[in-house]
Amino acid sequence: MTVYQRLLHIQQTKQTRLCVGLDPLPGRLPKGVHRNVAYFLLEIFDATLPYSCAYKFNLAFFERMGSTGLHTLEHLLRTIYEVTASEDHRPILIADVKRSDVPHTAATYASAYLDFFPFDAVTVNPLLGSDSIQPFLRFSNSLVFLLAVTSNPGASDFLLAPCGDRPLFERIVEKTATLASHERIGYVVGATYPEIFRSLRSAYPSHFFLVPGIGAQGGDMAQLREANQNRPALFSVSRSILYASLSIDFAEAARRQAERFQQESW
Amino acid sequence: MTVYQRLLHIQQTKQTRLCVGLDPLPGRLPKGVHRNVAYFLLEIFDATLPYSCAYKFNLAFFERMGSTGLHTLEHLLRTIYEVTASEDHRPILIADVKRSDVPHTAATYASAYLDFFPFDAVTVNPLLGSDSIQPFLRFSNSLVFLLAVTSNPGASDFLLAPCGDRPLFERIVEKTATLASHERIGYVVGATYPEIFRSLRSAYPSHFFLVPGIGAQGGDMAQLREANQNRPALFSVSRSILYASLSIDFAEAARRQAERFQQESW
Repeated sequence: MTVYQRLLHIQQTKQTRLCVGLDPLPGRLPKGVHRNVAYFLLEIFDATLPYSCAYKFNLAFFERMGSTGLHTLEHLLRTIYEVTASEDHRPILIADVKRSDVPHTAATYASAYLDFFPFDAVTVNPLLGSDSIQPFLRFSNSLVFLLAVTSNPGASDFLLAPCGDRPLFERIVEKTATLASHERIGYVVGATYPEIFRSLRSAYPSHFFLVPGIGAQGGDMAQLREANQNRPALFSVSRSILYASLSIDFAEAARRQAERFQQESW
Repeated sequence: MTVYQRLLHIQQTKQTRLCVGLDPLPGRLPKGVHRNVAYFLLEIFDATLPYSCAYKFNLAFFERMGSTGLHTLEHLLRTIYEVTASEDHRPILIADVKRSDVPHTAATYASAYLDFFPFDAVTVNPLLGSDSIQPFLRFSNSLVFLLAVTSNPGASDFLLAPCGDRPLFERIVEKTATLASHERIGYVVGATYPEIFRSLRSAYPSHFFLVPGIGAQGGDMAQLREANQNRPALFSVSRSILYASLSIDFAEAARRQAERFQQESW
């Protein structure tokens, strides 16, 4: 089964399009976790697993801790593989790295995040063109999410700006969609641009869209679900779940938030 | 002294614009280094230091080794700081990470590579717009190299492609050059596009250009030096120096190559 098929299967079984984003801030850990990032994230993982189909690891927050951060990531992935012995039960694990580089180096990033770290999917910045994306597609069982429109206001500088007869992001999607089938490539579309999500959704009905920016960044799940029309999508929520409580009840608070977002997502 | 001023000073003192790119491939280490990446790179550092003004660390090759790779990087930076006790003698250390993310996460990447890892400069992918770049500029003594034109053929897909009345890279440079002074922002221009380098050089005479792709990727140092007209630039060479020999004489071979490139660069 491809990652695309596994993701559809998990979503159907659990009736959820919720993806939980893991952005651990060492200075913002709840009481009772003794500054242990791995313990914190595994508690969040356990509490939210019934409601989510995917986890998005934001690498910045691990790199910020240097080798200790990547060691924590190695421990987390090993533990998740152990506790979800069968692939059918393991949620899709996404390396949110937004990497971009020339082919030789892009191949090295692909090895890092689709092999050394055994992620199922990876986010990639498409600015450097087709030959910078292809190394990520060479890992045959992976899903590559290319940035189309990001959730920040600055997206208007280039991605949303007119580039000839249409905005740059439309050119990027049109060009890159020819590189591989919809089972291999998906797109990141920020939740803060629901009308763009709606129009890309109808133009590309079979591609997975990864939609970050829900909750803390202002995106509205109900509006997105309606626009999505039950097509392949991942609605990603990070801070609203991770930091639902900074007290010792953080896992239960995360569970309640995940349950609410799961219901809104389906 | 700002990093910009330090870099000009070091270049003048040593009469070099050579930047050595460190892309360690664990499977391609020379004989005699016992698979020790840190030892290998410190030997390269020592051998090339008289001829170079900067070192560009390609993070992909460290991340590819997981926490072990970042541990090696921590060790390398600590050692370089120790052996170059005075800032005047320390070459400029560049984190070639090409990161891009929304502001909250971009700030985390900036902390990672301009604070936790004490680099002087960082490469950033500008696609996500001004607010994704500003967090890197908040570290007051840093130089931020934004991608303008990368050395790969795929640069023609978007960066070189017409976007209204001119190529996308021109819009990117024009827009981002207003974010800070030329002492804070520089641009990456691939050595494989010498005519573009020439035209950007005359349009932006005071900005530092970081020019990768010399040697293994086909860029020609002599042609670039002529186009540069003694303006602020870093000519970066990686594989032609690092893997000048795979035998026990690798450090001496790297030294000879660095000496040759130093002379061509000035």
